[in-house]
Amino acid sequence: MNLQLDENGRLRHLLTTEGIPRELLTRILDTAESFTGVIGKSVKKVPLLRGRTVINLFFEPSTRTRTTFELAAQRLSADILNIDIATSSASKGESLLDTLRNLEAMQCDAFVVRHSESGAAHFIARHVSPGVAVINAGDGRHAHPTQALLDVFTIRREKGAFEPLTVAIVGDILHSRVARSQIHALMALGTGEVRVIAPRTLLPAHIQRLGVRVYEDMDAGLDGADVVMMLRLQRERMRGALLPSEGEFFRRYGLTEQRLERTRPDAIVMHPGPINRGVEIDSAVADGPRSVILHQVTNGIAVRMAVMSMVLGGGAETAGSGREEVAS
Amino acid sequence: MNLQLDENGRLRHLLTTEGIPRELLTRILDTAESFTGVIGKSVKKVPLLRGRTVINLFFEPSTRTRTTFELAAQRLSADILNIDIATSSASKGESLLDTLRNLEAMQCDAFVVRHSESGAAHFIARHVSPGVAVINAGDGRHAHPTQALLDVFTIRREKGAFEPLTVAIVGDILHSRVARSQIHALMALGTGEVRVIAPRTLLPAHIQRLGVRVYEDMDAGLDGADVVMMLRLQRERMRGALLPSEGEFFRRYGLTEQRLERTRPDAIVMHPGPINRGVEIDSAVADGPRSVILHQVTNGIAVRMAVMSMVLGGGAETAGSGREEVAS
Amino acid sequence: MNLQLDENGRLRHLLTTEGIPRELLTRILDTAESFTGVIGKSVKKVPLLRGRTVINLFFEPSTRTRTTFELAAQRLSADILNIDIATSSASKGESLLDTLRNLEAMQCDAFVVRHSESGAAHFIARHVSPGVAVINAGDGRHAHPTQALLDVFTIRREKGAFEPLTVAIVGDILHSRVARSQIHALMALGTGEVRVIAPRTLLPAHIQRLGVRVYEDMDAGLDGADVVMMLRLQRERMRGALLPSEGEFFRRYGLTEQRLERTRPDAIVMHPGPINRGVEIDSAVADGPRSVILHQVTNGIAVRMAVMSMVLGGGAETAGSGREEVAS
Repeated sequence: MNLQLDENGRLRHLLTTEGIPRELLTRILDTAESFTGVIGKSVKKVPLLRGRTVINLFFEPSTRTRTTFELAAQRLSADILNIDIATSSASKGESLLDTLRNLEAMQCDAFVVRHSESGAAHFIARHVSPGVAVINAGDGRHAHPTQALLDVFTIRREKGAFEPLTVAIVGDILHSRVARSQIHALMALGTGEVRVIAPRTLLPAHIQRLGVRVYEDMDAGLDGADVVMMLRLQRERMRGALLPSEGEFFRRYGLTEQRLERTRPDAIVMHPGPINRGVEIDSAVADGPRSVILHQVTNGIAVRMAVMSMVLGGGAETAGSGREEVAS
Repeated sequence: MNLQLDENGRLRHLLTTEGIPRELLTRILDTAESFTGVIGKSVKKVPLLRGRTVINLFFEPSTRTRTTFELAAQRLSADILNIDIATSSASKGESLLDTLRNLEAMQCDAFVVRHSESGAAHFIARHVSPGVAVINAGDGRHAHPTQALLDVFTIRREKGAFEPLTVAIVGDILHSRVARSQIHALMALGTGEVRVIAPRTLLPAHIQRLGVRVYEDMDAGLDGADVVMMLRLQRERMRGALLPSEGEFFRRYGLTEQRLERTRPDAIVMHPGPINRGVEIDSAVADGPRSVILHQVTNGIAVRMAVMSMVLGGGAETAGSGREEVAS
Repeated sequence: MNLQLDENGRLRHLLTTEGIPRELLTRILDTAESFTGVIGKSVKKVPLLRGRTVINLFFEPSTRTRTTFELAAQRLSADILNIDIATSSASKGESLLDTLRNLEAMQCDAFVVRHSESGAAHFIARHVSPGVAVINAGDGRHAHPTQALLDVFTIRREKGAFEPLTVAIVGDILHSRVARSQIHALMALGTGEVRVIAPRTLLPAHIQRLGVRVYEDMDAGLDGADVVMMLRLQRERMRGALLPSEGEFFRRYGLTEQRLERTRPDAIVMHPGPINRGVEIDSAVADGPRSVILHQVTNGIAVRMAVMSMVLGGGAETAGSGREEVAS
């Protein structure tokens, strides 16, 4: 059974984009859309989650991801608490489940979980109490669903419908938790064609089964694309010599202005950040007119607000609701 | 004179449960009771301490304890600031008193103090300005009063009156700051009989003077008990060979279902956490129907809210007060 | 052009006290004055910056400075987020500018920047987007403008007008970011006479050009002074043997009660903290009746509230404004 949906098909946890039906994905994006107005205002705050407690439960450090969830929670008026599990009572020998039970007993409403092991967020979701929600903020090579959601949200804002689009995902597919989540979301939303472009050594086995077309040659893969989604070269996750050298990688798979000419004239360029300039993407492209990389960051706050409000709210989780709470 | 009471007998600081009269203990528990309703709601927040500043002043790290005070402060709408003194200007050679004077000058209202040295919270309380309150969050082997208060609060919620009860405290009494605080609170509240069960090497000298009965044999000590309060085996605090081995300790003092049969049929099992499963308590007991360990955690938030609101408030510190502030 | 003023002469960033005209300095001090009432109340909070996001962007750790900005932001109801850049994605190879662009894209409103390199805050201010403000919380030896502003604010509160005053700055001028900022602010405010007192090895070249009088002999320099501003001996910043010894330094430049007799009878003693007792100042003086050191700390919150509200607000940034926001 799908752990992340409740009996009414509502979002109960967000663990992976895999298995989320198109209607629900669309609802998440619509909810995120309603928050973009909030973020643009000078008072960037709605009282939707006032008095709710969100725990950033980070088993591996990521200032960047922690920051985005912290900002999203603040803008929903939730209380947020950062727990770096590496330095907590886990070191006193307490088990993960005991730590969870304790935080639940403190009446926390949601855990944002970051972990270096694949499946950690699922494990936690399987064991939390009925009232507590889990949001996966990245687990091992497995999934990074809020990143994928902000990516498809960005595509929808820039391009409209998914059906006519050809989307190319380029780079280290093998070590990327983002790529899997992106592919699932893009397929579910009915994207016309999804391509992955990578050297054979950085491709997972049987990736075609997800419905994507595989290219080893970048020029061929970019041909006619509407969206180019670059991946970060996860140098810190690579063990052994999967790559000849960074220079060689850039020569074959780095995105340059010249290569971008193979795409549609109005193609957009995306990257989950942080960018390795000159490794997987040329600065001229990253900072160029086709880049929507910083839009992705902005959209990431709205998407995380949407996910938090949906797993914690009672069904009235758009930006407009909750306003009357203030007035009363 | 009792440093922690003001001239009207009100709670000015919370340093130890020792010397707090029964009436005041009862008032703390009553105040905590009023907050249990707040914690159970989806908007877990009252505006009682809005605009007040609480500093978590931690000289030794404890994510768990810091978290409980941070949550309690958030739910009272106080502003809270964590200062890990190990990394602060103490390392620039500033004295503790100068650090205190500075934080006071920033108009902080309360310090929650955690320190590895016994007496540290008292020292700070002796030196703070009239308007500033100190809450001891554990100092050396000396005291951990909020833990003891949440323990007696839990007993009262589960059992009602203290007079008819036989309470057995089991384990490493010598190194436990909790045990001392528990004994003082239980005696002041009129508990029928308080027992301590421990090997001779883990008993402080003259412990009988506190009014407790001492047992070296666990089965005898548990006989007819209404409440069993297990202590954590403070392995990290033990120097030298006070114990034969963990296996041997568990064989003689570990709480198992079999041993629990010596207690009353409705006896409850408590533990301050984090649990060493299989060292001082069997998992079947910790997770069993008699365990109220997670209730203790929940009650800990209410008790810390009560203490904070009493040392900071002006006498109107129950959950109901402050509500009108919101409406106005 | 002056980076820190906008086309209407308003405060856009606060990078240095250098070049801020007297009228604007006075306006900052007046705004700070309006906040002193807020800080003294039990509800120390105004809703002026509700829904605004301030980032403490600390490239070198300083618990003390971080705390003052965090408290100031909380009391203005802003959301504040601490980013210790040493542990963030900078370590993943992201450039400073990319980090900035990302935080801006998350719609942060202000950066409070602390850096060990002179000019870092200017660099950041030159590159932020139009809507984002930068506050320098200390950069290398260069500037520490909020400290200097709280110093002149304290002088004005204690002494009134600047014109009749003789102010002596004593100690390690060479390594002090505070001294430069103080001198600029004091000169702009029309201070009668500003003196610096230091051994030749701790004086920057050409310091006289700033308009100060230089004394190597402390007794001569203190003669008739209204204000004595001691500097911290920056032992951790001194490389090589600029000083004979701490004992020798104290003998020649330490402030004692005896030396203080050379000043005016109503002279005040200031120090930016943390104090090295017995190194640059005697405890009897630091804790004595002429010391306003702790007033400086209190005033520091009001001044930081003033600066934050001026760079973030739309011109209605005194403590009184925003009140109606609450009522409505």
